[in-house]
Amino acid sequence: MPVYLDHAATTPMIPAARSAYVAALGLVGNPSSIHSQGQQAKRMLEESREVIAASLGAEPIEVIITSGGTESINLGIKGLYWARQGSEAGGSRPVVLVPGGEHHATVDAVEWLARHEGARVVQLPVDSLGRLSPEVLASALAEHGASVALVSLLWANNEVGTIQDVAALAAVTRSAGVPVHVDAVAAYGYLPISFASVGADALSISAHKIGGPVGVGALVVARRSVVEPLIHGGNQQRVRSGTQDVAGAVAFAAAAALVPQAARVPQAGGASLARAGDGFVGAADAGAGDGFVGAGDELAGEDGFAGAGDGFVSELAALRDRLIAGVRAAVPDAVLRGDPSPAGRLPGNAHFTFPGCEGDSLLFLLDMQGFSVSTGSACQAGVPEVSHVLTAMGVPDDEARGALRFTLGHGTTPAEIDALVEALPAAYAAARKAGFADRLVSPAPHP
Amino acid sequence: MPVYLDHAATTPMIPAARSAYVAALGLVGNPSSIHSQGQQAKRMLEESREVIAASLGAEPIEVIITSGGTESINLGIKGLYWARQGSEAGGSRPVVLVPGGEHHATVDAVEWLARHEGARVVQLPVDSLGRLSPEVLASALAEHGASVALVSLLWANNEVGTIQDVAALAAVTRSAGVPVHVDAVAAYGYLPISFASVGADALSISAHKIGGPVGVGALVVARRSVVEPLIHGGNQQRVRSGTQDVAGAVAFAAAAALVPQAARVPQAGGASLARAGDGFVGAADAGAGDGFVGAGDELAGEDGFAGAGDGFVSELAALRDRLIAGVRAAVPDAVLRGDPSPAGRLPGNAHFTFPGCEGDSLLFLLDMQGFSVSTGSACQAGVPEVSHVLTAMGVPDDEARGALRFTLGHGTTPAEIDALVEALPAAYAAARKAGFADRLVSPAPHP
Repeated sequence: MPVYLDHAATTPMIPAARSAYVAALGLVGNPSSIHSQGQQAKRMLEESREVIAASLGAEPIEVIITSGGTESINLGIKGLYWARQGSEAGGSRPVVLVPGGEHHATVDAVEWLARHEGARVVQLPVDSLGRLSPEVLASALAEHGASVALVSLLWANNEVGTIQDVAALAAVTRSAGVPVHVDAVAAYGYLPISFASVGADALSISAHKIGGPVGVGALVVARRSVVEPLIHGGNQQRVRSGTQDVAGAVAFAAAAALVPQAARVPQAGGASLARAGDGFVGAADAGAGDGFVGAGDELAGEDGFAGAGDGFVSELAALRDRLIAGVRAAVPDAVLRGDPSPAGRLPGNAHFTFPGCEGDSLLFLLDMQGFSVSTGSACQAGVPEVSHVLTAMGVPDDEARGALRFTLGHGTTPAEIDALVEALPAAYAAARKAGFADRLVSPAPHP
Repeated sequence: MPVYLDHAATTPMIPAARSAYVAALGLVGNPSSIHSQGQQAKRMLEESREVIAASLGAEPIEVIITSGGTESINLGIKGLYWARQGSEAGGSRPVVLVPGGEHHATVDAVEWLARHEGARVVQLPVDSLGRLSPEVLASALAEHGASVALVSLLWANNEVGTIQDVAALAAVTRSAGVPVHVDAVAAYGYLPISFASVGADALSISAHKIGGPVGVGALVVARRSVVEPLIHGGNQQRVRSGTQDVAGAVAFAAAAALVPQAARVPQAGGASLARAGDGFVGAADAGAGDGFVGAGDELAGEDGFAGAGDGFVSELAALRDRLIAGVRAAVPDAVLRGDPSPAGRLPGNAHFTFPGCEGDSLLFLLDMQGFSVSTGSACQAGVPEVSHVLTAMGVPDDEARGALRFTLGHGTTPAEIDALVEALPAAYAAARKAGFADRLVSPAPHP
């Protein structure tokens, strides 16, 4: 079996989510149908929404289930942008403030707003670790004043793992009276997130980054906030139409129920929902016996999303630190990118540049030995251009092309880390020998 | 077990699709990742795309996998509309031609274009059976000339079952040089569809209407056609971004592989792909042994999507005709809506209005006896307004409120039909006695 160190691209489904999914696939009935079978499906859907909401400190009605992180980010950004235009919103507000190094879904959504909808995108500089300072944001907000439509922030960078001080950045934005969208796709399930505390207007998450199914995500939209829909139709959800995917929501909830305590913020008054499992979807009966997620607790120890205190997150961070130390010892030339402090980066992320070689060459050489790694986000892998994230951090092109990202998750073992570290020096030597490809393309200029 | 006669809202997953799904859920790897695990996922995805394409006479590259019919329709309509604006597209083309009685996804998408993007929506009249005539369309195209952005058509009406002469309507549109989107969500899998022959620019389908999973669909976009994306990001597909749902595509393909011969159009030169099953996804190995869909053939007889000639579609039509005859005999007042000719309506659709009562009352009375039926589309069920489809067909409000839709599918038996027919007279008598609710709301005026 290959050693899978690309959990940020997608992490395998956890057994609890898979078994909940399989049971729910036997369901008959559209949750919008008013007959009993439809209403049973609707109950399962709404109970799932409660569990997802509880996993990140939101109210169920705030959770809009989508087809994944990319749709969520598009809906959050375009929806907030559109809602801020026109007479009711106080006139035209063309400015979108966005830090450098955001995920491609954000970059491409704001580029489209600029190209197609007349937006003016202002990219805010980040420091060499990828961090946006609240002062920089405050000064941009002051400079652009009433013409700012929204700010979009990235809770944790999916490539280099750097965590932003989202609470401070959101507070600055809120105090300027500007709505804020937060891309929490990489952060959710790994860092403590409270939608209520951070005060964002919209926040994007994805199920398949926490062991739920691909093709399911959510945009959390604050009760008070106005988002123009992207997909219109039967109005099945506040700001999103389309037949609701009950099985997908049930599987997402099964994974959300196992988000570890270390990635939760205690919620005032929401204690009873903070952990699901007891009786969740217990009323439903689609062949699964009593309760889809009940099995989660038994499986917890096995699948790593332990939900039993800080175990999972701290173990993951320890594995990451073992990997970072091992790589540095084995290849002293390697440069760790992103925030080097353990608390400043995602617990499962280790990102390096290796001087004098192509990240792609290293990737292929490691792949041949059974290690699955990435040169950056999977969304741009395969395209021979340097990472716009590294460029935003001021990394020169010739250094940036040697990027390699290792991301750890449930199931990762110390032995796998050690095997990678052992294989790395020879792969690096071979990649250096291969040198640079000619086909390097500079990243398209950010709007 | 309830008698499920609401297959148009959603049809249960067929065993072949479910087992393909379950096997594929064990996959590790994002198809955009360039390591071997990612590339294996990509192969399964692309093989699935081939099977889906073959099921409706399209090329694989034309199949854009989406989160379902509603997203597909939004992408098709808004994407074609946007692509027709601006200098490259020959200037401003604000007019959208759309027949009355379209699905809510179409109605609400074009209303949004009118409200938000300056479109001028022209609703084309349909006859009392719900049909748009090619002459009416041709005259509207002539009237609005170069200002027409697109035409959207509905292959078969999801409420009343009427089939349009889409080939003739698309030909009229094409000869005017105007792009055409076709909503084939209700038609796909039940009527012979050839994307190549009909000559549409974009065509929307959904997996969960043919026994595949909810949350998966496709927009088929002709190679020659330009569609502006709705969701931006990693450019994983021509006009749609977002991590691709391999398991969803595999399950969709498993259902698409079983689309019966009677719902296929023989394709010139595409014979080898017209039926999957032999070796499909055979190369993949995610715990399923050899081939996910191989099981489909064994299960074919059991699940009704027989794929072995005309069996499924003609059996379904016979059951529908049994139901129609039975209802007419049991409740002579009932009025069949939509095209009464067997070849003119969906094989699984029977739609009536019952004079002097609310459809909702009938629905609840039948539900109490274990029959799951609908008053119209699930997307609008629960909202006490008369169907805009019936209104477009000229049905007066007081008749329209007594609407009840029965939709049949795989697993429906003659005994279930007979049981419904037997239960109907007493339910109708009780519903008439309950009379009309006060809460009727007229449908919002169509743009």
